[in-house]
Amino acid sequence: MDSFEFMSPTKFILDKDADLLCGREIKNYSDNVLFVHYGDKYTYESGLYDRIMGAIKEAEIECYELPGVQPNPRVSLVREGIKICREHNIGCILAVGGGSVIDTAKAVGIGVFYDGDVWDYYSKKAVPTKSLPVGTVMTLPATGSEGSNGSVLKNDETGESADVMGDILRPKFTLMNPQLTMTLPKKQTVYGIIDIFSHVLERYFSTSVDAHLTDYMCEGVMKSIIVNANTLMKDLNDYNARAELMWTSVIAHNGLLGTGRNQDWATHTIGAQLSANYNSVHGATLSVLFPNWAKYVYKNNIPRFAQFAHRVFDVPVDLDPEQAALEGIGKMREFFSSMGAPEKLSDIGITSDEKFDKMSNDACRFGNIGGIMTLTPEDVKRIYQLSM
Amino acid sequence: MDSFEFMSPTKFILDKDADLLCGREIKNYSDNVLFVHYGDKYTYESGLYDRIMGAIKEAEIECYELPGVQPNPRVSLVREGIKICREHNIGCILAVGGGSVIDTAKAVGIGVFYDGDVWDYYSKKAVPTKSLPVGTVMTLPATGSEGSNGSVLKNDETGESADVMGDILRPKFTLMNPQLTMTLPKKQTVYGIIDIFSHVLERYFSTSVDAHLTDYMCEGVMKSIIVNANTLMKDLNDYNARAELMWTSVIAHNGLLGTGRNQDWATHTIGAQLSANYNSVHGATLSVLFPNWAKYVYKNNIPRFAQFAHRVFDVPVDLDPEQAALEGIGKMREFFSSMGAPEKLSDIGITSDEKFDKMSNDACRFGNIGGIMTLTPEDVKRIYQLSM
Repeated sequence: MDSFEFMSPTKFILDKDADLLCGREIKNYSDNVLFVHYGDKYTYESGLYDRIMGAIKEAEIECYELPGVQPNPRVSLVREGIKICREHNIGCILAVGGGSVIDTAKAVGIGVFYDGDVWDYYSKKAVPTKSLPVGTVMTLPATGSEGSNGSVLKNDETGESADVMGDILRPKFTLMNPQLTMTLPKKQTVYGIIDIFSHVLERYFSTSVDAHLTDYMCEGVMKSIIVNANTLMKDLNDYNARAELMWTSVIAHNGLLGTGRNQDWATHTIGAQLSANYNSVHGATLSVLFPNWAKYVYKNNIPRFAQFAHRVFDVPVDLDPEQAALEGIGKMREFFSSMGAPEKLSDIGITSDEKFDKMSNDACRFGNIGGIMTLTPEDVKRIYQLSM
Repeated sequence: MDSFEFMSPTKFILDKDADLLCGREIKNYSDNVLFVHYGDKYTYESGLYDRIMGAIKEAEIECYELPGVQPNPRVSLVREGIKICREHNIGCILAVGGGSVIDTAKAVGIGVFYDGDVWDYYSKKAVPTKSLPVGTVMTLPATGSEGSNGSVLKNDETGESADVMGDILRPKFTLMNPQLTMTLPKKQTVYGIIDIFSHVLERYFSTSVDAHLTDYMCEGVMKSIIVNANTLMKDLNDYNARAELMWTSVIAHNGLLGTGRNQDWATHTIGAQLSANYNSVHGATLSVLFPNWAKYVYKNNIPRFAQFAHRVFDVPVDLDPEQAALEGIGKMREFFSSMGAPEKLSDIGITSDEKFDKMSNDACRFGNIGGIMTLTPEDVKRIYQLSM
């Protein structure tokens, strides 16, 4: 078990009407708010917009809006938000949506207190030390941003994606109404599930030894994801499974499951290049890549992959460890495929290897990646090839 | 899965020198501190006192002391601490020790802001809404107070024990140096393990259905406790197992494992009467009572006890559920006994049933207790009898 520092100060509330508590929670910090949202058809037509606006007004909070967040959120919108906050001396930000909205809100929160351009935080030219309080109303369990210490943005001008991390980015409160996720279509549900599952995998495939507590917790969380995913594949309207996934999204990515161990994160980095170059959906890249990454690296730590197989997928313990490891990887693929998730790059529209060199080099632009096995650009390219 | 609200804002640091960070952490809140500790031989002779004092002085923090905390901490000492804080306008409290010291520090923290007597909080005449920031240096993983929202005190005059709960009581920071626990004797280590394990059991034996995530997490945490306990029974100096137990003490009792479910807590209430009437050690009461409580109530929820048996103690799944349930309870007893923990009331010096009626009534003085089965005073008495 390695040394660690961990905090997750967010107040989490899960309830059928949790979103309606936003007025009360904002009021703990401010009499005005910046309400950040997608501003899409769903937001208005589902009644979500009216619910939130009603709750804000009932609490007598002055409301300013920042609609228009897109998937892979843009820094240009963040700059607009910062401007509004400064103009109106705003004291709290409410993000209503999924990871893109929350990451935008977090960026506005830290940007308000910085004299330079907020992208400096993402290009690591500056480190945020202060933020406006940010609260969230979760509508898409996947990225875990509602409990995490990170924010990912895209730079409109350069096309570059980058993140900023720090406990200052953790939301003050996160309101989880599972009913808001009941209407999520199957595809988004599945990609959310794979994103959540992958956040555990990245922490689980560690070279730290004797982290029994986090091992068992990671395994338990993965087992619960499988149970709830199976339920949802039979009935997307299952409230309980929706509620559990909502909470699992937080647990998988607030850092708890990484305490006392190093982590891998190569697959996320390899996948990010697909999103940057082909606009591929994050969950889809993980579905394609994770089993292939595992097949490529497992020989570096057969006991860990065998343990994964035994404890998460009930592969018999009396099997030869290497065979067990491979069976576990096969079961991971089966789990993803059982939900209709893509297996190959061609399933997500990538049929040529023309960008493999560029993507492999870009994936390793800050140095070689991964923990279980340190991957060079050549290794990354091989994983792309394996995924064709 | 039930609705819930959960927060655990404490900053946790685990490291071989974590305690030396106390100066830096206090400094985030104040230039002076009330240093609460046992003031016993161990504190001074182990070097602990000097380490902490050195770190406080190095950070140029003015230090006042409240030594003399005893097991089952007394409200009279808390009153002294409140007086010191008010006299010197103290801005932060540092608890160095186990649960008694931390519970004392928490009580001082809330008491400072209350005009009446601090016991009013414990007798539920008042509700705390404000506290001085409290930090902890953990030396005895057991009660989980270092991450919990509660404090338990004893009233010197009446002999009554009572608690106060609320997120305002959660420590601001908890510094975990596993080396400080290496010298804990076997007995204290074992009682700590059983206390931690019991905090999970109380949450696990729930009547809430479909809380898969917390089920699997509870089971995983219990399995890790068993692994680390077995390691420590072979070698009390195993750093890794000590470190894991330290972190498990927090996880087991910061509320995470109870999210989305109701809880039981009958056994803690029944055991508290033994501590109040016979001064029995908390962990010892749980060791005696938990398997007997389980034998008494399991028929109310055989599937849950069977699941416990299968998933925590690897009892075969093809067994008849009732037989599996009983085997699981037997394995729980074996686990406690394997560490030399007491099995019967006579093992902890209680050989007469003369106080059973009084204790049973007192255990239910606020109403019948428990979740898996609602226990009347008559039921409680039967559990004492079963434990003879």
